[in-house]
Amino acid sequence: MTSHIRTADPTGVLHDLFRPIRAELAQVEKLLARELYSVDPQLGPLLQHASQLAGKRLRPALLLLVGQACGQITCDHHVMAAVVEIIHTATLLHDDVLDKAAVRRHLPTINARWGDHTAILLGDYLFSHAFYLASTTGNAAACVRIGKATNTVCAGEIRQQAARGNWNLSEQEYLEIAAAKTGALCACSCEIGALLAGRPQPEIARWADFGSALGVAFQIVDDLIDVLGDEAMAGKSVNRDAAQQIASLPWIYAWQELDDGERSLLADWLENLADDARGLPAPAATEPSAGVGAGGSRQWLLWLEKTRAVQRAWHTAKRYADLARNLLDGCHDSPAGRTLARIVDFVLERPC
Amino acid sequence: MTSHIRTADPTGVLHDLFRPIRAELAQVEKLLARELYSVDPQLGPLLQHASQLAGKRLRPALLLLVGQACGQITCDHHVMAAVVEIIHTATLLHDDVLDKAAVRRHLPTINARWGDHTAILLGDYLFSHAFYLASTTGNAAACVRIGKATNTVCAGEIRQQAARGNWNLSEQEYLEIAAAKTGALCACSCEIGALLAGRPQPEIARWADFGSALGVAFQIVDDLIDVLGDEAMAGKSVNRDAAQQIASLPWIYAWQELDDGERSLLADWLENLADDARGLPAPAATEPSAGVGAGGSRQWLLWLEKTRAVQRAWHTAKRYADLARNLLDGCHDSPAGRTLARIVDFVLERPC
Repeated sequence: MTSHIRTADPTGVLHDLFRPIRAELAQVEKLLARELYSVDPQLGPLLQHASQLAGKRLRPALLLLVGQACGQITCDHHVMAAVVEIIHTATLLHDDVLDKAAVRRHLPTINARWGDHTAILLGDYLFSHAFYLASTTGNAAACVRIGKATNTVCAGEIRQQAARGNWNLSEQEYLEIAAAKTGALCACSCEIGALLAGRPQPEIARWADFGSALGVAFQIVDDLIDVLGDEAMAGKSVNRDAAQQIASLPWIYAWQELDDGERSLLADWLENLADDARGLPAPAATEPSAGVGAGGSRQWLLWLEKTRAVQRAWHTAKRYADLARNLLDGCHDSPAGRTLARIVDFVLERPC
Repeated sequence: MTSHIRTADPTGVLHDLFRPIRAELAQVEKLLARELYSVDPQLGPLLQHASQLAGKRLRPALLLLVGQACGQITCDHHVMAAVVEIIHTATLLHDDVLDKAAVRRHLPTINARWGDHTAILLGDYLFSHAFYLASTTGNAAACVRIGKATNTVCAGEIRQQAARGNWNLSEQEYLEIAAAKTGALCACSCEIGALLAGRPQPEIARWADFGSALGVAFQIVDDLIDVLGDEAMAGKSVNRDAAQQIASLPWIYAWQELDDGERSLLADWLENLADDARGLPAPAATEPSAGVGAGGSRQWLLWLEKTRAVQRAWHTAKRYADLARNLLDGCHDSPAGRTLARIVDFVLERPC
C-alpha cells in the first residue's frame, strides 16, 4: 500500500482521473475563488489560506461525476460542488483545532498561524457560507440534504469524541462513526449529483449508498495511513489518531486479539502518546510499505503485525470498496461511470 | 440602570411583554424541544443541556412579533423562530469556548462540563441543524437571509477577535462589529418575520434596520452590564470582556479620554486581568446601580467615572434605541407594534 492517498495528488493520478470533468471542475474552482474571497482585511487572508488547506476536490468531483453519469451537469451542480468543498474545509479547520494539528498539506494550519479562536470562528463562517451558497440555488431539496449530511457529520464527530480512549470500541461502532463523519458528506455529494440531474429517488438513494461505501473505505485507508504512512508523504505525523485517543480500525482489531498483559502494555503506550506528542515514535521506515513488513524493533509495530490488524483493516476497506463498485453496476458504459470505478480503485490503491 | 437584562427574566418583564404571542411562542418551544432532542446517548444529553443555556427567546419573539405586526403568523414563522434561536445557541456555545466561560445562566457551560472539543462540535451540529430546519420550509429566500446573517455574525466575531487588545479601537469600528456580531441576527429575525408575512422589500428592509438598531443597543447595554453588573444578578462575572482583551464601549471611551500616564496604568490593569482570571476585581457593590456612583476605591471604577465613559456608552445605547423606536413609527396601533416598542424600552431599562 502506498501512502499518497491523502496528499495533494503527487502522482497526478487524480489529475488524470478527473479529465472527463476538467472543465466543470474549473468552473467550481472559479466559484470557490469568488466565494472564498473577501475585501475585509481580517477575513480575506484567512479565507485565502483556508482555501489552500483542502486539496484533492474529491467531493466536488464525485458530485460532478455522478451528475454526468446521470445526465447533464447544470449550473447548480457547480454551486453545490463548491458547497460540499467549503463544508469539507470547515470540518478540517475544526478538526485541526481539536487535534492541535500544526501542519496540513505542508502549510501551517489556521489554528497554528492565527490561533484556536480564529480557526473556530473561520470554520463557523465557512459552514454558514456554504449553507448560504446552497440556498442561492433556490433548490430546497438539495439544501435539506446538505443540512442533514452536515448534521450527521457533526453527530459522528461527537460520537467519536465520546468514544475517545475506548480501545474496546466494536467494529460496528467504528463503522457507524466512519459512515457518519466521513461517509455522509461523500454520500450527500453523490446524491445531490443525481438529484440535480433529475433522477428518481431510488436511484438517488443508490448513489448515496455508493458515496457512503466509498467514504468508509476512504476513512479506513486514512486510518491505515495514520499508522503506516510517513510524514513527508502524507504531510502529517503518524499515529496522530492514537495520540488523540481516537480508536482507529487497526488499533481496534489489534486490541481485540491481544491478551490482557499485552493490552495493558498497549494501553500504557497509547497513554504516553496522548500525554506527550513528543513521544510519537518516528515512522519505522521511509518507505511506508515497509511499515509493518519490516519487522522493526518497535513494539507497536509488532502488536499490529502479530494481530494481523493492518491486513484485517485492509480487508474491511476492500469490502466497502467492493460494495461501492457493485453499486456502480450498469454505469460502466459512460466515461463518468468508468471514472467513478477508477476512483474506487484509487482510494484503495495498493501494490497487490 | 439595572443589570437583569441578560438574566432569564427574573423580573418577569419579558414574560408579560410576550403575552400577545404567548401561544405562538409555545409552538416554537414545542419545535425546539422536538428539534433539540436525540435518542443518541451522546447527543441527547448535550442537546438537552444546550437548550437550557439560551433563555429569553428574544430573537424568536422579534420574528413572531414582526410577523404579527405585518399580518399573520404562519407555520414557517414558528420554524424560522426556532431556527434563529438555535443559531443563537450555537454562537453562545462557541463564545463560551473562546471565553473559557464556566457558567451561563447559572448552569455549567458545555465546555466546562464536557470539554472544549464537544462544545465546538455541538455548536457545529446546532449551526447545521438550524440550516437544515430552515431548508425544510422550502423558502429559499428565507434561507438565503439566514445564511447571510450568520456569515455576518461570524465575520463580526472574527473582526472582534483580530481587534483583541486594541484599546484604541474607534467608536465606528466598535459599532460596525456590534452591528455584525449582535445586530445581524436580530435584523434577520425581524426581516424574516416580515418576509414570511408577504411584505414588500422596502418594508422588509425597514424591519431589518429596526432589528439591527435594537441589537446594537442591546450589545452596548450588555457591555455596560459587563462593567457594572453583579455576578449574582447577571449570572456571569464582571469585566469578562476586558479579561478577554475585548474592547467594550465603556473602555473605548475611557481610553480616548485618559492621558498617557493613565493609559499606561489602565493597560497594565487590563493586562493583569487577561493574565489571570483570578485577578478579576469583585464588583464594587451588590447593587449594580451603585457600581459607578458609589465612588469606590477601585482605580478601574475611578477611570470610568472620571472619563464619564459609562454615561457616554449609555447615551450611545439610547441613540440606537431611539433609532429603533423611530423605525416603529406607524406600528403603534397594533398590539404587536406596541410590544416591540416596549421591548426597546426593556433593552434600555434604566431608573432615570
